[in-house]
Amino acid sequence: MTSIDLNADLGEGFGRWRLTDDERLLSVVTSANVACGFHAGDAVTMRRVCELAAERAVRIGAQVSYRDLAGFGRRAMDVPPAELAAEVAYQIGALEVFARAAGARVAYVKPHGALYNRVVHDEEQAAAVVDGVLLADAALPVLGLPGSRLLELAGKAGLPVVTEAFADRAYTDAGTLVPRTLEGAVVTDPDAVVERSLGLARSGEVVSRSGTRIEVRARSLCLHGDTPGAVELARRVRERLEASGVRVEAFA
Amino acid sequence: MTSIDLNADLGEGFGRWRLTDDERLLSVVTSANVACGFHAGDAVTMRRVCELAAERAVRIGAQVSYRDLAGFGRRAMDVPPAELAAEVAYQIGALEVFARAAGARVAYVKPHGALYNRVVHDEEQAAAVVDGVLLADAALPVLGLPGSRLLELAGKAGLPVVTEAFADRAYTDAGTLVPRTLEGAVVTDPDAVVERSLGLARSGEVVSRSGTRIEVRARSLCLHGDTPGAVELARRVRERLEASGVRVEAFA
Amino acid sequence: MTSIDLNADLGEGFGRWRLTDDERLLSVVTSANVACGFHAGDAVTMRRVCELAAERAVRIGAQVSYRDLAGFGRRAMDVPPAELAAEVAYQIGALEVFARAAGARVAYVKPHGALYNRVVHDEEQAAAVVDGVLLADAALPVLGLPGSRLLELAGKAGLPVVTEAFADRAYTDAGTLVPRTLEGAVVTDPDAVVERSLGLARSGEVVSRSGTRIEVRARSLCLHGDTPGAVELARRVRERLEASGVRVEAFA
Amino acid sequence: MTSIDLNADLGEGFGRWRLTDDERLLSVVTSANVACGFHAGDAVTMRRVCELAAERAVRIGAQVSYRDLAGFGRRAMDVPPAELAAEVAYQIGALEVFARAAGARVAYVKPHGALYNRVVHDEEQAAAVVDGVLLADAALPVLGLPGSRLLELAGKAGLPVVTEAFADRAYTDAGTLVPRTLEGAVVTDPDAVVERSLGLARSGEVVSRSGTRIEVRARSLCLHGDTPGAVELARRVRERLEASGVRVEAFA
Repeated sequence: MTSIDLNADLGEGFGRWRLTDDERLLSVVTSANVACGFHAGDAVTMRRVCELAAERAVRIGAQVSYRDLAGFGRRAMDVPPAELAAEVAYQIGALEVFARAAGARVAYVKPHGALYNRVVHDEEQAAAVVDGVLLADAALPVLGLPGSRLLELAGKAGLPVVTEAFADRAYTDAGTLVPRTLEGAVVTDPDAVVERSLGLARSGEVVSRSGTRIEVRARSLCLHGDTPGAVELARRVRERLEASGVRVEAFA
Repeated sequence: MTSIDLNADLGEGFGRWRLTDDERLLSVVTSANVACGFHAGDAVTMRRVCELAAERAVRIGAQVSYRDLAGFGRRAMDVPPAELAAEVAYQIGALEVFARAAGARVAYVKPHGALYNRVVHDEEQAAAVVDGVLLADAALPVLGLPGSRLLELAGKAGLPVVTEAFADRAYTDAGTLVPRTLEGAVVTDPDAVVERSLGLARSGEVVSRSGTRIEVRARSLCLHGDTPGAVELARRVRERLEASGVRVEAFA
Repeated sequence: MTSIDLNADLGEGFGRWRLTDDERLLSVVTSANVACGFHAGDAVTMRRVCELAAERAVRIGAQVSYRDLAGFGRRAMDVPPAELAAEVAYQIGALEVFARAAGARVAYVKPHGALYNRVVHDEEQAAAVVDGVLLADAALPVLGLPGSRLLELAGKAGLPVVTEAFADRAYTDAGTLVPRTLEGAVVTDPDAVVERSLGLARSGEVVSRSGTRIEVRARSLCLHGDTPGAVELARRVRERLEASGVRVEAFA
Repeated sequence: MTSIDLNADLGEGFGRWRLTDDERLLSVVTSANVACGFHAGDAVTMRRVCELAAERAVRIGAQVSYRDLAGFGRRAMDVPPAELAAEVAYQIGALEVFARAAGARVAYVKPHGALYNRVVHDEEQAAAVVDGVLLADAALPVLGLPGSRLLELAGKAGLPVVTEAFADRAYTDAGTLVPRTLEGAVVTDPDAVVERSLGLARSGEVVSRSGTRIEVRARSLCLHGDTPGAVELARRVRERLEASGVRVEAFA
């Protein structure tokens, strides 16, 4: 039986501000990418999300970011490797306190926003993220894009790697994401997103922007929870997967 | 044989800025109160201080603070208890990563600056700090002022408590610190500081501002490292203690 | 003919986060308390709010705050007077750039959150806020609570003072606000809020929590825009005032 | 008679931390690049530096930066143009309050650190900085590197431009700075720095790294004040210039 993990970003508020509907998202996903305070995520929110996730047996991941609350971690930064590695470890450690207090553990690491995009190609920063993960825990899985430098270097360093795909993003024939700056980069039709999710989960295939059926092998699907209707769409994806005989469960 | 712990604040730089001479201080003290990023202390500095401390077998403590880089944690804040508890745990967790990576552990918690002063009397905030420590580790010692609400509540909660004294601060006849706003609150004569250190360590006694010999039982002496000549004075204190047969070692 | 000013907090987002429906609120109020970056308010938002306000001839005020993004300026802080004064001036200056670029000026200053509450009674901080306003502009009106130390000291310093009242807050017989910690501090019935607004605007009277008709002289009414239905209620207040012959206009 | 402006970065502390010896530097330079709070510079420091500068008739400039206290503005950031422009204006406005309160005005703008380097080549960010300056004041001079996109776009936008040179940096034959990553990029011999200053001021010439005499036309020399001996060297430069008949004065 096929199985797939569903991950989403959670806890992306800060102080007075809220962004994600954490409680509802946690009833859909199997892995929660929890903001650790650098792009979002105050300590109270981190604690609450870890408690809710642990109650629902949702896996807790550290979503590490550049230190940039004003830019929500979406602005690429030339952070020297030693700083980046230490900041990644800092964020994992901070989240680990709340995961443990809730009876769980930080179970994986996923970069956020501009850092996520940067470590697809940037060897230096990818290596720094790997160093940061190793500082925290030499057995911590890293979640990222198939073919990224991050996963390549994480694998070489002995860290478990977990690939993810995006049902709401267009793919090139080469299996890479169509940049958001291009027309049609985001799949906005909910029905299409649901069907693409099923294809990705069941056969590891999706139709590229040019209309070609391509292979995208991923152990996890990334869902979004920060737009109106997003949680409802995530729920539809999960229901469709389960109704089609796909087991929705966290990666091993 | 009498023994005493010597603690000092370290790692109090931030990014480009430096404050404490960490390397030299670590050759004097037995316990290092490491800034965790809320009043000072970036991730690179935290990592480096933990490595240096571990090499020298200096105990690593989390110096937790209000979230106030601009004020260096010296401005009292009415932080709601749930926020304060979570922020204390966050800081401990962040430091723990670097302590572990250096082959050590966070071995105690000490509040910094305005929070340190506040939890002497403020029951609500003292309880919140205790809650934060318990979130992180239910066996973590708390370092503070004898008679403070913090130590009282920490003790009730089952946390080990460690008392500290200040050789460079004047005491009232009741054994409390003379407020810094009053004349003579700080002992500036280096020789006097050295002799008071010896008295505190050997007999648990010091002369109050009024001239009375009073009892101040403390397991640790707090030294300062952020002023010119401070490290040299700290070294003199240590040498005087050892020359007088006091064993300088971290608390058990 | 009676006239009244309507003020509300605006621009209280930060980076990715939004709080207030600035565009709709600006079609209701005559004075906009614009967040200046210390409790909320990034530069892009400040610029946009100033542009929208200037287009609608809404007066622009600097809502100055403690430096506390994590706490949204709602946590009282013991900021030394010289720091507080300089930080108040800094915020006014930053907003002034955007007001001028939009063809307007910063027309008044109003403290936010915990600072607002603190300067009702705290002479030192009230004096520091006045000093900060004077640094920026010795003719800038200060908006605050009648009877507050802030308005008293601002008046003594030669600054114009503008009093405000709250139609959705309960008053004591002495004309002060019932603290939020007490039952019934907030008036939640929209119809009651509308009627109280009219009473405050037309006769300077409101019914206290004990049922006594008391006098509350205010040149401005503070409306809220950060809760669901708040903008709609604000609109109803304005419509009721205008339908009753009260002229809604910014204070002179 | 030849004249030259001397500029240096000042006010680069933050809260408890100090970096530059502002008081001594202000007795040497004719233009002070004042940190505005984004890479350094708290409100109290900004106020004090403006007062000291005004007393000494030193010109006050806004040293605008990326929003990055942790990295001291030295990490390039992909800030979207609208954000960058607004943040530049915000910083200028904040400083303007203190300049005016001291009886002066912000007289020019100079980007700091990574932003300074970025706008040498990056058209988008250079244009955003120009937009930010225009938002604040359409007649404000911009200080920067000859040949930079920043000065080119500032000039096109009608802003006065002021060129600067570095006596302690090596130049290529093309008249550009040798990157800091290359050997010999920084001239460390104090005597050489003094002589190069004189050559730059008097004849607009300097010897390139390859030994060729090249032309570097600059209206201002940038001195440094954040290293031991830096202020003393700056003073020597000024004395040598004056003794050689060069008038040291702010640019017109």
